[in-house]
Amino acid sequence: MKNKNIKTAVVLLSGGLDSATVLYLAKAQGYSCRALVFDYGQKHRQEIFRAVKVAGSAGVPHTVLKISLPWKGSALLDDKIKVPERISSGIPVTYVPARNIIFLSFALSFAEVLKAQAIFIGAHAQDYSGYPDCRPEFFKAFAGMAAAGTAAGKKIAIKVPLLNKDKSEIISLGYKLGVPFGLTWSCYRNGKKPCGKCDSCYYRAKGFHQAGIADPLFKSRVLRSESR
Amino acid sequence: MKNKNIKTAVVLLSGGLDSATVLYLAKAQGYSCRALVFDYGQKHRQEIFRAVKVAGSAGVPHTVLKISLPWKGSALLDDKIKVPERISSGIPVTYVPARNIIFLSFALSFAEVLKAQAIFIGAHAQDYSGYPDCRPEFFKAFAGMAAAGTAAGKKIAIKVPLLNKDKSEIISLGYKLGVPFGLTWSCYRNGKKPCGKCDSCYYRAKGFHQAGIADPLFKSRVLRSESR
Repeated sequence: MKNKNIKTAVVLLSGGLDSATVLYLAKAQGYSCRALVFDYGQKHRQEIFRAVKVAGSAGVPHTVLKISLPWKGSALLDDKIKVPERISSGIPVTYVPARNIIFLSFALSFAEVLKAQAIFIGAHAQDYSGYPDCRPEFFKAFAGMAAAGTAAGKKIAIKVPLLNKDKSEIISLGYKLGVPFGLTWSCYRNGKKPCGKCDSCYYRAKGFHQAGIADPLFKSRVLRSESR
Repeated sequence: MKNKNIKTAVVLLSGGLDSATVLYLAKAQGYSCRALVFDYGQKHRQEIFRAVKVAGSAGVPHTVLKISLPWKGSALLDDKIKVPERISSGIPVTYVPARNIIFLSFALSFAEVLKAQAIFIGAHAQDYSGYPDCRPEFFKAFAGMAAAGTAAGKKIAIKVPLLNKDKSEIISLGYKLGVPFGLTWSCYRNGKKPCGKCDSCYYRAKGFHQAGIADPLFKSRVLRSESR
């Protein structure tokens, strides 16, 4: 017999360590989780396989949703735009217009069908590059819009549990929850090993360093530049 | 040389007469339009071909975006749920969870890449079946969310010009604008001819009748029941 008290959540899973931590956190909070993974044409295909592995490791069913964005305009999608090897200021070239809005919209549709109580997303306000769709005011506005525009109304909470955490705090939390960091992928490039040069690699390394935890992706890991 | 004063708009085009009217209206308002058509697995495939024809007739470039919703939950997607032959009250079985939210999110992404000034959508508040994502408060909330969550911020207006019009007013407007109603498709079923029985067929027929205009899809058209 189905337990009516079981809470259900849709968790956006990217293959990175933030969303993996959120998945393990949602599980720890008692949610029955469904992982939603997007194949949106990202050049760093590793992400998708890693997300599926993480979901499997957590014992959570996953759905890979393929969406094609016929327009480009981001270094993550467009071969003509290079992933930069330096930390950017302002809105970076890796910004994919309205990406989180699209992802959350699909999650909302899925959550309505599942009669889920929550959607979890691993964004954090101190995110490395100032993406507009990672800001606290965006998530608040999205929740209001979802309440106005769906049959489920206000029944579906938009949970952004990492919103006020920095990378090292996320890694510390994930470590306690048993997140398999060795399965996750952060690099914006698609090599066999992380490039160690893009924004995302840099902040991952810095986060592990600050948390005092070894990144299982690397046997030994030295920051590119300690001064940065 | 490109005219910097040209306004650009993304127009959501479904193949129905509402969005066709909106496309012609946006053109009349001086917008350079890009039509966005969704293949979301709808059973009434006619919609897609009709939308492409309408865009062609208007001389507007179109993009068909294929998205797969692995979850069902609507009579428009699920073969197990029949399109009803009666007017429904409340939220109908033809409601596709978060459909307009997903459509508008893609339009927003496209509009950002195009540096467009507006997104047009053909929803109307007096829509036949109480879809939550057709309500005025939803569009207002969506615009607020879009402003908070995109790089373009408040530069992209969400235009819902039919919001306060009923079907007969829309048909009268479309007639003046030269909308090729004979190319449009309203039926929720996928026959060679409209079924004449679903909600959508009923309201189309009633609208033409009230506007005193002949529907070019039919040589002679009699309402199912004048008393409804």
